[in-house]
Amino acid sequence: MRIGNLTTPSLLVEGELLDANLRAMSDALPGDRLRPHVKAHKCTGLAARQASFGHVGFTCATVAEVEGMARAGLGDDLLLANEVADATRLGALVRAGTRITLAVDSEETITAAVRAGVPEVLIDVDVGLPRCGCRPKDAGSLADSARRQGLSVRGVMGYEGHIVGLESRATREEMLEVSMHLLRAAHDDVGGDVISAGGTGTYDINRLATEIQAGSYALMDTAYAKLGLPFAQALSVLATVISVNPKWAVADCGLKALGMDHGNPSVESGTVMFCSDEHLTFVPDSPVRVGDRIRVLPAHVDPTVAYHAFLHVVDGEEVAESWPVDLRGW
Amino acid sequence: MRIGNLTTPSLLVEGELLDANLRAMSDALPGDRLRPHVKAHKCTGLAARQASFGHVGFTCATVAEVEGMARAGLGDDLLLANEVADATRLGALVRAGTRITLAVDSEETITAAVRAGVPEVLIDVDVGLPRCGCRPKDAGSLADSARRQGLSVRGVMGYEGHIVGLESRATREEMLEVSMHLLRAAHDDVGGDVISAGGTGTYDINRLATEIQAGSYALMDTAYAKLGLPFAQALSVLATVISVNPKWAVADCGLKALGMDHGNPSVESGTVMFCSDEHLTFVPDSPVRVGDRIRVLPAHVDPTVAYHAFLHVVDGEEVAESWPVDLRGW
Repeated sequence: MRIGNLTTPSLLVEGELLDANLRAMSDALPGDRLRPHVKAHKCTGLAARQASFGHVGFTCATVAEVEGMARAGLGDDLLLANEVADATRLGALVRAGTRITLAVDSEETITAAVRAGVPEVLIDVDVGLPRCGCRPKDAGSLADSARRQGLSVRGVMGYEGHIVGLESRATREEMLEVSMHLLRAAHDDVGGDVISAGGTGTYDINRLATEIQAGSYALMDTAYAKLGLPFAQALSVLATVISVNPKWAVADCGLKALGMDHGNPSVESGTVMFCSDEHLTFVPDSPVRVGDRIRVLPAHVDPTVAYHAFLHVVDGEEVAESWPVDLRGW
Repeated sequence: MRIGNLTTPSLLVEGELLDANLRAMSDALPGDRLRPHVKAHKCTGLAARQASFGHVGFTCATVAEVEGMARAGLGDDLLLANEVADATRLGALVRAGTRITLAVDSEETITAAVRAGVPEVLIDVDVGLPRCGCRPKDAGSLADSARRQGLSVRGVMGYEGHIVGLESRATREEMLEVSMHLLRAAHDDVGGDVISAGGTGTYDINRLATEIQAGSYALMDTAYAKLGLPFAQALSVLATVISVNPKWAVADCGLKALGMDHGNPSVESGTVMFCSDEHLTFVPDSPVRVGDRIRVLPAHVDPTVAYHAFLHVVDGEEVAESWPVDLRGW
């Protein structure tokens, strides 16, 4: 299969760049120092490639991601780094042999784990991102409560999501100091072997975490590209030019093919004006014609991939593999 | 099935509000005065409901939407209101008995229709939205060229997408005057029975169009709700509260469940702070608890629906029907 035969829009992954990203990360964080986050690609084919670089524990954001990873034989050590009010489906997986660790930050989520029969948890700690996580000072008593109810508390988790995307490395380091101070204190009260934290933007500066939950590093996006990390943008959306006039051109890649929360995508040789449902209006640097193919670089990888059914791994003009984006939905 | 049994996030459609919206529109624009746009819901179940209100011609934005509508027996008169560089799949549908009209705005797109064997076209005219469409003064010569090549030119199309979402009705009317002046001139040169234009924001003020391509009116969103139209927000995303602290709460409905190009969604009783991949952080008006269900109102309906596998039509606490969102992908 050649790229020219793909329907557009289609997600392309440059195989060489992907492998270079995976290698750079596994060199920096070998084996279980990295717990790759599958939410960034939602694809067991890509997760299997990550496993081939030595990472066998994975991070998931949804129950469906945990189920899909288990189904694909990648269930050695899955962390659902998120709270769930009803863990019934996870309990069923545990009984079928999957190792699952669940993030908890309240008595209710501890109860959900106990009821469902999920035996292992991490205490999720608020380290500054206004989202999930208990107050650091409550972590110890939650761990005590979980243990009293028969759960094994493996340690703590604290995701510094308010820091990972900041462009200045110095600012990231400064703010991380504060966040990880909170997580260290919580861990002192909780105990356990695991301190799970970090993302692509802090993978090399978070020195407290025993494991880093990075995901975006594999495919990258234009938002993370600004940080000057040693990972290349391996993901693009292939689009076809469908309309041309003297001032702009239009390609068939719009809001339903791109995560838009980080703003407009970029194109390789042109300036994006705006996106509509199925259109990208852009000003090309040099003339384009109807039928030309262009590459669109998404601003945010995670919600972009979630719109697509396949990741096409390409090598030059050849499609080497087409991986289903099989961890979508809930 | 009760709403309480649905996995979250899930798309809910209030059946009564949906029917009221469909009725209000079919009262205003009966039969073929409306050509409902399926891109807003991507669901043949909902399209069939629209057909039951007397509209048998539909507007599509992608080849896959045309294919899905034909497969569902809704292929009496499908307009693909978009340019395609390769119409091969449409030609196959035409030969199987589906009536398809294709928007063209260039010699290349005319050639695509001829090559594929799609016999009917509309000349797509730029009426002010910087996207597809030929210059108004070129419409006549494109029509001549299409006819010389054996195509039947049914008329013109000119979508005023830069106007439909403006909050002031007076501004919409003023700008529409300019746009439709351009479309009328193009139609004078092109001929044919069809002047296809309009959207939910101009359905009752576009008096030139012989058919209005509205789609959002069926489900609505918070962006269109600001216009004071006689259509109710029938769509919401059901979410579960998974984490609560004194200052905010978090529900399991994030960037992969919501189109974000129009900004944050709203919640019924609270203020949204921000969305992450699988989270909505909000400040509830009154205390909520882990496990509570909330309704999230998307800012933009089209790219929201495209993330979900089902539209659940609800009546009180009962799920009356679950329609597959079967027109997704390309």
